[in-house]
Amino acid sequence: MVQRLSDKDAGFEAKFADLLAGKREVSEDVDHIVRDILENVRTHGDRAVLDYTREFDRLDAAAMAELTVTSAEIEAAAGKVPRETLDALQLAHDRIHAHHARQMPKDDRYTDALGVELGSLWTAVEAVGIYVPGGTASYPSSVLMNAVPAKVAGVERIVMVVPSPDGVLSPLVLAAAGIAGVTEIYRIGGAQAVAALAYGTDTIAPVAKIVGPGNAFVAAAKRRVFGTVGIDMIAGPSEVLIVADGDNNADWLAADLLAQAEHDTAAQSILITDSADLADQVETAVEAQLKTLPREDVARASWRDFGAIILVDSLEAAMPLANRIAPEHLELAVADPEALLKKVRNAGAVFLGHYTPEAIGDYVGGSNHVLPTARSARFSSGLSVLEFVKRTSVLKCSADNLRALGPAAIALGEAEGLCAHARSVSIRLNL
Amino acid sequence: MVQRLSDKDAGFEAKFADLLAGKREVSEDVDHIVRDILENVRTHGDRAVLDYTREFDRLDAAAMAELTVTSAEIEAAAGKVPRETLDALQLAHDRIHAHHARQMPKDDRYTDALGVELGSLWTAVEAVGIYVPGGTASYPSSVLMNAVPAKVAGVERIVMVVPSPDGVLSPLVLAAAGIAGVTEIYRIGGAQAVAALAYGTDTIAPVAKIVGPGNAFVAAAKRRVFGTVGIDMIAGPSEVLIVADGDNNADWLAADLLAQAEHDTAAQSILITDSADLADQVETAVEAQLKTLPREDVARASWRDFGAIILVDSLEAAMPLANRIAPEHLELAVADPEALLKKVRNAGAVFLGHYTPEAIGDYVGGSNHVLPTARSARFSSGLSVLEFVKRTSVLKCSADNLRALGPAAIALGEAEGLCAHARSVSIRLNL
Repeated sequence: MVQRLSDKDAGFEAKFADLLAGKREVSEDVDHIVRDILENVRTHGDRAVLDYTREFDRLDAAAMAELTVTSAEIEAAAGKVPRETLDALQLAHDRIHAHHARQMPKDDRYTDALGVELGSLWTAVEAVGIYVPGGTASYPSSVLMNAVPAKVAGVERIVMVVPSPDGVLSPLVLAAAGIAGVTEIYRIGGAQAVAALAYGTDTIAPVAKIVGPGNAFVAAAKRRVFGTVGIDMIAGPSEVLIVADGDNNADWLAADLLAQAEHDTAAQSILITDSADLADQVETAVEAQLKTLPREDVARASWRDFGAIILVDSLEAAMPLANRIAPEHLELAVADPEALLKKVRNAGAVFLGHYTPEAIGDYVGGSNHVLPTARSARFSSGLSVLEFVKRTSVLKCSADNLRALGPAAIALGEAEGLCAHARSVSIRLNL
Repeated sequence: MVQRLSDKDAGFEAKFADLLAGKREVSEDVDHIVRDILENVRTHGDRAVLDYTREFDRLDAAAMAELTVTSAEIEAAAGKVPRETLDALQLAHDRIHAHHARQMPKDDRYTDALGVELGSLWTAVEAVGIYVPGGTASYPSSVLMNAVPAKVAGVERIVMVVPSPDGVLSPLVLAAAGIAGVTEIYRIGGAQAVAALAYGTDTIAPVAKIVGPGNAFVAAAKRRVFGTVGIDMIAGPSEVLIVADGDNNADWLAADLLAQAEHDTAAQSILITDSADLADQVETAVEAQLKTLPREDVARASWRDFGAIILVDSLEAAMPLANRIAPEHLELAVADPEALLKKVRNAGAVFLGHYTPEAIGDYVGGSNHVLPTARSARFSSGLSVLEFVKRTSVLKCSADNLRALGPAAIALGEAEGLCAHARSVSIRLNL
C-alpha cells in the first residue's frame, strides 16, 4: 500500500508537511576517512593514488600510466558497443549539444549615460574534472550530461575519472567520453580521485572545478576540496512528481512513476490528481508492472517507503503543492499543460503532456538530466553551460567620469570609515 | 619591507607558487558551537533566538517584536544620515540597479528541427535572507550590493538580519535597506540568525536562500544549512592586483594598494610592473601614506605580511601571472588597458586605466562588489542577478516526436539496465 493523502482530509496540511520534511537519505559519516585520504594524496601524489586504488578498487598498478586510458582504448571500447547504442549516444550528444549551445551567455560591454564604460565578460573555466561512478551506477548518459556543457562552454581540459573495480570498466562509458570529447581519462575513483583532481599530482594537472555524482566518499571529498576548486551541487536521490487529470492512461503514468523508483530505494515518485478513479487505477497498474521489472526490489522499496498519491479537489489546488515540493522532475499530464506551466515556480524540469515521459529528458530530449533534488529547485537550477563559465566585470572611468562619480564614492568611503578608499579617489581629483 | 619578486630571479617560480599557496586566514573552529545553536533554534524557534541575542549581543528583548525593525525606525534612521551620504547611497543604488537589470536572463522557448518543444524558464527565488554584520564591518554599501540584485531578480521577500550588539544599530545600514527595498528587518545576528532564516520561527518565515558576509560563526552556520537553503560563496579577505607600466603616478597606485590593505590584516595587495623605478616609487609612497591612515595598523600588517611587488621583464609576462593569481580585483594601469583585458582569463572585476580606482567599484560604479576571493575567480563569479533566479527546463513531445526519439531512449535505458525507463517510452509507442 502506497501512502494516500487527500486535501479534503482533516490533518492534510500536517501530513503534507511531513512528506516535505521526510529525509530519504542516511548520510554515511566518512568524513574522517576522507580527510586522511585527501591529505595523503596532497602530500604523496601519484604514490598515494596508486596505493588507494590497490586497496579500494583491487587494481594493482605500478605506475599511473597503467591507470591512464589511451585513445586506442577508447576506440576499442566503442568497437564493443552495439551500433544501435552508439547511434543513440551520438543522437543524445548532438541534441544535448544543440540545446546547451543556446545557454552560452553573451558578453555585455556598454557605455552608460554618464560615459562610464561597464561590462560583463564571460570566460570558460580552464580545466574541469568529471567524476563518473564505477559499477552499476556507471551511466554513459551522465558522461554526456556533464561533459557536453563543459565542451560547449569552451573548457580546454576535460578530465574524467572513473574507478574500475577489479579492472572492470564500462565500454559504454568510454564510448560516451569519446563522443563527448573528454580530453583525459584516469581509471581512479573515490576520494583519492577527487584529491588528485583538486590538488594535482605529477601525472594529473589540477583542475579548477569538479562535477559529477558519486558515493558518500566522493560527496564528502567534494565538500572538503570546495574552495580549492569549484564543485557542482551534491545530488540526492531522484524524484518525480506527476500532476494528472482524470483523462490519462494509468499504465503510462505507472511506468513513469516506476522509472524513478527503479533508480534507488531512496527515490521518490508522487502522483497528484483530481480523479479518485485515476488514483486507484494507477496504484493497481504500479503493482502489476512492479512484478515485471528486473529492478523490482529497488522500485518496490522506493514506492512503498517514499511513494505517495495525493488526491486534490481541483488541479488548481495541485500547483501550490507542487511548488512546495519543488520536484526535480515534474510531469504535467493534463489536457492543457501550458496553463499549468504558467503556475510552476519551483521545479528542475517540466515535461508537458502525455507524450513526454521523463525518461526522454534523461537521454535524448537535449536538456540536462542533472537537476536539483531534495526541494533545492526552490533556489537552484540544473547543470548548464553557466556552471563552466565565469563572469568578470569591467569598469572604465575617464577623468571626467571620476569627477562625476568620485564625490559620492568619497562620501561613502568616509561614512564607512574606510579613508584609504576615499583617498584613492580624492588623490586623483586633487581634492 | 614588502616582499619583492622578480621573474629574472632564479627560484622565481617557487617563490611565486608560495605566494599563490599562502593561506591568509586562520579559520576558527566553531562548528560544534554552531551545530548546537542551529539545533536549538530549529527546535525552540523564537525563544532560542531571544536567548542567544541576550547572550551574544547583550540585548534583552522579551519578544521578537522588539527585535523587528519598523518602517518608522527606517525613516528615523534616514533622518540621522547626512543629506550628502543619503544622496551618495541613492546614486549608488540607482547605478547598481541599472547595471544589474542588464543581467536578467531571458526565457528561451523554441521548437527544434524535429518539432520537439524545448525551453529554459527563469523564475525568482521566492524569499531571500541577507546577513549584514554588526559593529565596524556594518557596511551600507554591502546592503545595496546584496539586496539590489535580489530586488532586480523579482524576489518577493528580502529579509535582512543585522545584529545590534548592546543595542547599537547603524543608521546608514537601515537607510540603505530602506533605499534597496528590503521587506523585513530583524536585529539578530550570528548562527542564530542564520538558523532562523533557514528553518523559520513563529515570527520569521523561512527563506530559500541566504547571502551576505559574516564572521566565523555565520560562515559555519551557512555551510551547515546549505541544502535546506541555498547560500552564496563564503567570502575571504579582500585582494587587489595592480598591473602597471612605468608611466604611472606612484602615489595613486599606493593609495589603491592601501585601500585594499585597510580592509583587514589578511587582505592582500600586489603590484606587478615592468618598471623597477615605479616599483621603488610605489614602495616609498606606500610607506609615506601608511603613516597618515586612520586604519594604519591594519593596513601596515596586511602590506607587511601579504603585500608583494613583482617585477617582470615585460607586461606580456604579467598576464599569465595575473591569471594564476586570479585576483578578486585587477587594475590595469597601463597605456593600453584594452589590449591587456583581452588576455584576462581569471579575475572577479577589472578596472581599466588610470582613472578607475577599485574603490569606484566598491560604491558607485554599478557592478557588484561581492566578488570571488582566494583564487576562486578561476571557477566562480561575483554576485549577480543569477544568484537570485533559477532555471526550469521544459520539454514537450508530440506522439510523432516520441516515435522519432523513443527508440534511442529505449536503447540507452536498456544499455544502462534501467528497464522501467525504457518501458515508460515503449508503452506509449505500443512497442
